[in-house]
Amino acid sequence: MEHMHVKGAHIFSHNLARLLNITPEQVRRDLMLIGLTGNHRKGYNIEALVGLIGKTIDSYDPQNIAIIGIGNLGRAVTAFIRKSGSRLRIVASFDIDPLKINHEIAGVHCYPVSDIEKMIKKLDISIAILTVPPDTARSIAGILTDSGIKGILNLTSVHLDLPEHIYLKDYDIITSLEEIGFFIKSRG
Amino acid sequence: MEHMHVKGAHIFSHNLARLLNITPEQVRRDLMLIGLTGNHRKGYNIEALVGLIGKTIDSYDPQNIAIIGIGNLGRAVTAFIRKSGSRLRIVASFDIDPLKINHEIAGVHCYPVSDIEKMIKKLDISIAILTVPPDTARSIAGILTDSGIKGILNLTSVHLDLPEHIYLKDYDIITSLEEIGFFIKSRG
Repeated sequence: MEHMHVKGAHIFSHNLARLLNITPEQVRRDLMLIGLTGNHRKGYNIEALVGLIGKTIDSYDPQNIAIIGIGNLGRAVTAFIRKSGSRLRIVASFDIDPLKINHEIAGVHCYPVSDIEKMIKKLDISIAILTVPPDTARSIAGILTDSGIKGILNLTSVHLDLPEHIYLKDYDIITSLEEIGFFIKSRG
Repeated sequence: MEHMHVKGAHIFSHNLARLLNITPEQVRRDLMLIGLTGNHRKGYNIEALVGLIGKTIDSYDPQNIAIIGIGNLGRAVTAFIRKSGSRLRIVASFDIDPLKINHEIAGVHCYPVSDIEKMIKKLDISIAILTVPPDTARSIAGILTDSGIKGILNLTSVHLDLPEHIYLKDYDIITSLEEIGFFIKSRG
């Protein structure tokens, strides 16, 4: 009976949302993406939820990643990811600095920017992390688009216009801090 | 007449959303926060929109920021923010490393972690950027809470449980990359 009870246990999206500091809408959207819909009255079946999340993570095959622009931030991000114990694989970096090109920076080989297209194909790189100066962000994004990249994590504050088939995630620390500052202030 | 036409020009949240690569819901939520609601049939009055955004930015008085944990990532983030030309003010860093304490790191004075509470009050710091190792993130967050911090930008992958009155923003690069990897894969 105890077991039966656990098997039938449910949780609502707003409970999950509170645990994760996100909105119930985000919870429902994300779970729908991995194929799970909750019951309006009961919420999500916990056993089904745990099973499906586990299956999704297990089937996750990490793609090869390149860092474009291996300055201070690029180096720190590379080191951070390599230390994190995650399955993310950084296989190359690209820069224009002759002192960096053909050297290992933060444990990753640095190629010239002119080789982006060639190396992205050769090393089967699907994700690029963009940490270049703002004035070059758009031209580099164009090169990445032409090279067949599938996803970009944009750490610059430059807004990029990319074709629909490239998955873009903006990750701008300045905007995040300004957002915090704004909310703190509006709370008085 | 030309002028009258411009004065009356409107734009819909879905147009703004497409320009910014965000959802129409985010546009409406953010604009509602600065006090602007659109008209269902016409959208937002562009003149009112530009005026209010300008007023919001002009009235924005940046808070003092501290970096907690001034390792590679902390240093890179500090340098990045200081170079960005934004009005964000990093006034202190905190670390446990005796080689860093009482020195300038990336242009910012480093204090011992034991002084967090004292210095946050003394320097009127309202925002903390957390770049400490995962195993210390929760205890440091507790110290920050006790010190009266108002906002935290959490760069660690640790989930923090904070009181409601602290504005928390998680900014986890590992999760962002895994999200990109997942979406790329699910697109086939």
